[in-house]
Amino acid sequence: MGRPCRQLEAAAARAVLGAADTLLFDCDGVLWRGDAAVAGAPGTLARLEAAGKRLCYVTNNSSRTRQAYADKLRRLGFPAAAPRQVFGSAYCAARYLRQALPPGAAAYVLGGAAPLDPAVRAVLVGFDEHFAYAKLCQALRYLLRGDAACLLVGTNRDHRLPLEGGAAIPGTGCLVKAVEVAAEREAFIIGKPSRYIFDCVVSEFDIDPARTIMVGDRLDTDILMGNTCGLTTILTLTGVSTLEEVKGHQESDCPARKNLIPDYYVDSIADLLPALED
Amino acid sequence: MGRPCRQLEAAAARAVLGAADTLLFDCDGVLWRGDAAVAGAPGTLARLEAAGKRLCYVTNNSSRTRQAYADKLRRLGFPAAAPRQVFGSAYCAARYLRQALPPGAAAYVLGGAAPLDPAVRAVLVGFDEHFAYAKLCQALRYLLRGDAACLLVGTNRDHRLPLEGGAAIPGTGCLVKAVEVAAEREAFIIGKPSRYIFDCVVSEFDIDPARTIMVGDRLDTDILMGNTCGLTTILTLTGVSTLEEVKGHQESDCPARKNLIPDYYVDSIADLLPALED
Repeated sequence: MGRPCRQLEAAAARAVLGAADTLLFDCDGVLWRGDAAVAGAPGTLARLEAAGKRLCYVTNNSSRTRQAYADKLRRLGFPAAAPRQVFGSAYCAARYLRQALPPGAAAYVLGGAAPLDPAVRAVLVGFDEHFAYAKLCQALRYLLRGDAACLLVGTNRDHRLPLEGGAAIPGTGCLVKAVEVAAEREAFIIGKPSRYIFDCVVSEFDIDPARTIMVGDRLDTDILMGNTCGLTTILTLTGVSTLEEVKGHQESDCPARKNLIPDYYVDSIADLLPALED
Repeated sequence: MGRPCRQLEAAAARAVLGAADTLLFDCDGVLWRGDAAVAGAPGTLARLEAAGKRLCYVTNNSSRTRQAYADKLRRLGFPAAAPRQVFGSAYCAARYLRQALPPGAAAYVLGGAAPLDPAVRAVLVGFDEHFAYAKLCQALRYLLRGDAACLLVGTNRDHRLPLEGGAAIPGTGCLVKAVEVAAEREAFIIGKPSRYIFDCVVSEFDIDPARTIMVGDRLDTDILMGNTCGLTTILTLTGVSTLEEVKGHQESDCPARKNLIPDYYVDSIADLLPALED
């Protein structure tokens, strides 16, 4: 059974608390839920404080100040707390940046619901330059709706869309991941490297994989899909992936990375031309 | 060296192409870059077609129709392609949904740049109800800027923020993950389970971990941090995590999951009260 997890009952609790001088409390779900204190919690903290324990509040919430937490503790009947007993992630982030950045440096900080349509049974995440938090909320509402299973589908997992001149913008994979994290489940992926996109080809044409070549510039999408589907794969070096990356996969011990190695590569598909001369 | 990756040269190319009757092409980075065909690519495809090969176009791009791809191929001088040769992820997603959903079901579909401030040296991702794709773009521009290393910091990885009545909204972890995927690197995380938030406590108070208790309602944040930092950990069952989850971790063979097991649990921290009576 490994490491045990015993219920903390009177005698043991006494020993455990007696051996401690500090208690860190998460707030939401521990001290309160929403705007209501957990029954008995304020009294418990008052006793702990009276017994000489130090109390701190450690929360991942980044949208409230330390003072706001101190105010809420007081309002809900907890022992008075000084703002310096409160450790929110915004405060701690500010601390970190102050230490990690040179003086004068700044930080760029990223910091509604319509009625649900009862006919909706799937959330599809594609590239969306108007992606916004409100949409993420709406997607989660659909995905959590208890009355009907709701599919979660992503068009692809591409991290970035390359622009001219080496620049890039975030790809659909970013948006898919955001929804997956909220939903706590994996999306079904349509695009490469999923074989589904190849299955679509097969269903529309009479395809023999042994006689099919996949040409692509990305190892993690094009080549992986091609190898997975039993196709011959050719990497062309005019796009994203490099021979260095191929070498890395070849030298790796990880079996999964073998599928990222193309059968062949060309500097450009123009290099195939001589083979096509009579 | 494992599976080889040979350069495809004339003799081999002839054999490889001769053995194939279909070629699937990714488009961007393979056939064109932006609005310019890769030099030699249109001629190559024309020869392939003349040699009787079937050509298909398989792209993860979800924002253009099959017809738009056919148009672009023609405009850039490639052999004429029918829309049915084009397999974009939007088209394939629609196919999938048609098959996977019952008749009449619908799908909810998700799918600017300011001047860069030269002083910015970090991107901090916190909870942001106005999170939007334009912000994700801006973050990536900072993170990719070549002239100065830019930190990527997330306040926490919480998947969801629970609301009253069992509902929930997406948490900061969704937004952090979106930026990480775009940036192709991991954020430094401030909040639990990172020990950094505990280090902040230590730097402000004289803390002895052996004498410190962490009380929380989440195994993956509160309890993990507490265990990592050598604190005594107590799970309270008034919030997110359940005893079932504890049991799952206990029965698992995975060493990492051992750190998710609290030393103790209580139904509510009110249960600590009796231990505090004189």
